[in-house]
Amino acid sequence: MARWEPNARERLQNSALELFLEQGYEGTTAAQIAERAGLAKSTFFRHFTDKREVLFGGQELLHDLFVDAIAAAPASATPLEAAGATLAAAATVFGPERRTWARRRQTVVEQNSELQERELLKLAGLTAATADALRTRGVPDPTAGLAAEIGALAFRQAFARWIAPPNQRDFADLAQEQLRELSAALPTLDLTTVT
Amino acid sequence: MARWEPNARERLQNSALELFLEQGYEGTTAAQIAERAGLAKSTFFRHFTDKREVLFGGQELLHDLFVDAIAAAPASATPLEAAGATLAAAATVFGPERRTWARRRQTVVEQNSELQERELLKLAGLTAATADALRTRGVPDPTAGLAAEIGALAFRQAFARWIAPPNQRDFADLAQEQLRELSAALPTLDLTTVT
Repeated sequence: MARWEPNARERLQNSALELFLEQGYEGTTAAQIAERAGLAKSTFFRHFTDKREVLFGGQELLHDLFVDAIAAAPASATPLEAAGATLAAAATVFGPERRTWARRRQTVVEQNSELQERELLKLAGLTAATADALRTRGVPDPTAGLAAEIGALAFRQAFARWIAPPNQRDFADLAQEQLRELSAALPTLDLTTVT
Repeated sequence: MARWEPNARERLQNSALELFLEQGYEGTTAAQIAERAGLAKSTFFRHFTDKREVLFGGQELLHDLFVDAIAAAPASATPLEAAGATLAAAATVFGPERRTWARRRQTVVEQNSELQERELLKLAGLTAATADALRTRGVPDPTAGLAAEIGALAFRQAFARWIAPPNQRDFADLAQEQLRELSAALPTLDLTTVT
């Protein structure tokens, strides 16, 4: 019998991370996660297809946020500004209340090479979606691809700073700072003898 | 009894790809690969730790080539030129005789999400090693990270063009062209209102 459980998804996410950190990702089952959360196993499977999705389900949401943010950027936005709109959109799901969870999630991912690989695949998907959304706006290649890669680099750097203790700054703030720093560094790359 | 087998490594690589394409990566065993190559299973394991290494062993070599190339770049090289030296180094292992093999390998990787994830992890490792080697040369952040990402983008684009039929052009040539194009596109990124 399916019944509504208050905050079931969040309780399952928190229980999953607790167990992953206590006994490892590999050794944890969906049934254990549900039990720790005081919920039925069937409730787990109404929220997640498997235990991996507890860690990566949020990236589907990011994909949609990124694509929508680029589509909604003003027509006058430069390619990097449009890519920067994805960072502002990401900030809406990286609120202060998520920081501790994100930090613990990162610890789990870093302990498991399969999860690291999955993380990279998801990030590569986000970068490719960003480049495609820029092309849809009329940004030509290779600019679209470059802007997407630089946006992804700013995203990764900002995320690492955001979850690093004792940071208290907002993700949006850190992300715009990283993007500005990367942008300011572009002239230092130079390729004088090859160009 | 270990005995010397002429071109054993290459024969095993070719047999592995044949089998991966015929019957899938998952369903192929090291024993089958050795048998197809007319070699003993023990010979397979003298050359590779497992079937996955048949596909990814070359990336260890690339790692060393990349790091050495950056260390050997002239002191006057700009960050992008030093990153570009990794592409020239990669070209030494991407000769015309490897193109068909690389193309077939890519087909296998694209058919299997686990292999795609492994590929991304290896490429991320190469990019991180490039950035570290640039920092060792005294290139500061964020320039080192940016140059490494742009080098990696040029690498991926050049590799895709290199293996795409009916291409006959050299990897080195394509890679330098991609890097020049990316470099030329840098001023079009702009971040005027954010900077």
